[in-house]
Amino acid sequence: MSIEEQALKLHYEMQGKIEVVSRKEITTREDLSLLYTPGVAEPCRVIEKNYEESFRLTRRSNLVAVVTDGTAVLGLGDIGPAAGMPVMEGKCVLFKEFGGVDAFPLCIDSKDVDTIVNTIYLISKSFGGINLEDISAPRCFEIERKLKEICDIPIFHDDQHGTAIVVAAAMINAMKVVGKKMGEMKIVINGAGAAGIAIGKLLIAMGFGNIVMCDINGIICEGDEGLNAGQEEISHISNIHKEKGDLADAMRGADAFVGVSRPKMVTGEMVASMNKGIVFAMANPIPEIMPDEALAAGAAVVGTGRSDFPNQINNVLIFPGIFKGALAVRAKEITEGMKQRAAYAIAAMIPDHELHEENIIPSALDKSVADAVAKAVADVAIEEGIARVKP
Amino acid sequence: MSIEEQALKLHYEMQGKIEVVSRKEITTREDLSLLYTPGVAEPCRVIEKNYEESFRLTRRSNLVAVVTDGTAVLGLGDIGPAAGMPVMEGKCVLFKEFGGVDAFPLCIDSKDVDTIVNTIYLISKSFGGINLEDISAPRCFEIERKLKEICDIPIFHDDQHGTAIVVAAAMINAMKVVGKKMGEMKIVINGAGAAGIAIGKLLIAMGFGNIVMCDINGIICEGDEGLNAGQEEISHISNIHKEKGDLADAMRGADAFVGVSRPKMVTGEMVASMNKGIVFAMANPIPEIMPDEALAAGAAVVGTGRSDFPNQINNVLIFPGIFKGALAVRAKEITEGMKQRAAYAIAAMIPDHELHEENIIPSALDKSVADAVAKAVADVAIEEGIARVKP
Repeated sequence: MSIEEQALKLHYEMQGKIEVVSRKEITTREDLSLLYTPGVAEPCRVIEKNYEESFRLTRRSNLVAVVTDGTAVLGLGDIGPAAGMPVMEGKCVLFKEFGGVDAFPLCIDSKDVDTIVNTIYLISKSFGGINLEDISAPRCFEIERKLKEICDIPIFHDDQHGTAIVVAAAMINAMKVVGKKMGEMKIVINGAGAAGIAIGKLLIAMGFGNIVMCDINGIICEGDEGLNAGQEEISHISNIHKEKGDLADAMRGADAFVGVSRPKMVTGEMVASMNKGIVFAMANPIPEIMPDEALAAGAAVVGTGRSDFPNQINNVLIFPGIFKGALAVRAKEITEGMKQRAAYAIAAMIPDHELHEENIIPSALDKSVADAVAKAVADVAIEEGIARVKP
Repeated sequence: MSIEEQALKLHYEMQGKIEVVSRKEITTREDLSLLYTPGVAEPCRVIEKNYEESFRLTRRSNLVAVVTDGTAVLGLGDIGPAAGMPVMEGKCVLFKEFGGVDAFPLCIDSKDVDTIVNTIYLISKSFGGINLEDISAPRCFEIERKLKEICDIPIFHDDQHGTAIVVAAAMINAMKVVGKKMGEMKIVINGAGAAGIAIGKLLIAMGFGNIVMCDINGIICEGDEGLNAGQEEISHISNIHKEKGDLADAMRGADAFVGVSRPKMVTGEMVASMNKGIVFAMANPIPEIMPDEALAAGAAVVGTGRSDFPNQINNVLIFPGIFKGALAVRAKEITEGMKQRAAYAIAAMIPDHELHEENIIPSALDKSVADAVAKAVADVAIEEGIARVKP
């Protein structure tokens, strides 16, 4: 059986990948009277008087909503709310298995930005955080921005920020392996959607030298016409030499390539034109260039999104720990500082003496990563003065 | 420690009574590739082509949302969405522990009927059913009616229908114990809110003779002014002799009393004036009349909502099985037929030779009740031709 057939069979057998269970068995009248009536009235009264106690007395303490509108699910596109659910359930499984964070999937049956924002806001007091997922750009930017303004819990669009953090972590270590200096690097990012722009912004904020964004029309340069809001914003801080041209032009002499675009966009010649290039070809399941081809063309380090090659650059290293840390200190938001420190925390999990071309990032199955990320996030929250409780 | 103190301590220790877990542990790359990418794309594609498969391939198969706006939580009143959450979580615990049904609590931060309806509708494709909870009357009627019109999954306001079914079940057996005939009974219901009206309508539909509704102004009679929509509706089918007067007038000669009102509304004299009265005094935690007082005044059978007296009339006997049955056959709604058959199924759990004044209804802790209710509901769905899958 193919992976697809096996997965389908397993999904029919499981009839859902998550389950909502009681944290205590009910067998006696006393159980009923403490967990339900009449005892339950007391925690209700306490929360009514002091709203913050809802984060201690209910599952908000450890609970994230994984929310989509089904418009950009995997590579499948706009498949609607019900069809997006298997991915959301899978994400919730990863939250729990890797971070110990309870996560619940919600698909919203609307494509209207304000309707989505309002719906999420109206249920946000049931959760400790909101993980936005597979919402198409540029709507995802606006939805995230508006939610951050009105909600009192962390809002995190994983396709943007999870991807950005894991790429940054891998880049930190790849740079060490190759012996490049952060401030002197030219990094080409191909794909100027949600993930590409978030990667660009984070790498710039962290001090990587020159980020050159490309999309289907080639290099993005300040002043270009037809840019969307996110592209326009990053055009002012990227491509500092105002290069013009296509992807091949951008890659010539570049120190690194990050692909969040489509299969087979990059040729061996392009890689050969780089400066001992770091190549992160993350299109899934078929990368922008296959690792063997990139290496044959002279790439110094290659990473992909796939589990069957070395250096799998996968968000699962990020989101469980990000929320675990934020929830532990009841942070109201995920800050830029948290993202950067999370990237360094992941990079630091590979000690220098173990770093090499095929080992720049921990395994996606390494369940200790979430704790390291969570600690970094909680530490930053405390330093920034936004922790509301001690972890 | 008091029950309240114990319950609060336990809630702080548990930090939430429910938990979202994975139905399969993730330890290998294969697990990841089957439950998440790339395998998960296949069930997504199948649902995109055939929406009904979402009820087989995701947790919709067994998942209910427990939704409130926090406006009528227990006897606490309008305490808001966050403060209502401990009760909703408790309800979810009961769904799982008694029915094996996954249930997830959602508090909506609005009191506007259309906003609540719209919010629930927009997330309804994430669930197999919606259990409305602790929403104040008369808004709850309108919310339920509107949701039933637009959703393709069962909508069930437990405070109305769960209460009605469990009262009907108890009444069937109490009637047998006392030797009364259904069609000849006069039943007084005190409290004409959500629960009272639902009880009245169900008992009338089941063939109980004459239902007389009372509220704070006394007996409700067709043509009365100042009735809300629900009261006006039932005024046309209840109180067939058009009695007027107060609660004491209504109870004189009555065969049964059902209280869903307030503590100590009923005196021994009122009970003494009944005809070998069945007294269900369900105000919580203090009933309309205490059982010993009612019995001393000549009541033939007494039931309350409390676990420390015989004949506890508790919704937990109902909602887990109602949804378990509806989900098993993918019924789109909970019909009148299902409710009636569920009441008979519960009544039938006490065999005739075990029926007596202090044993008219199964224990709230009896976990076999949900299966009996579920079977009744599924059977009716099949008979009525609304079952979409075989159980």
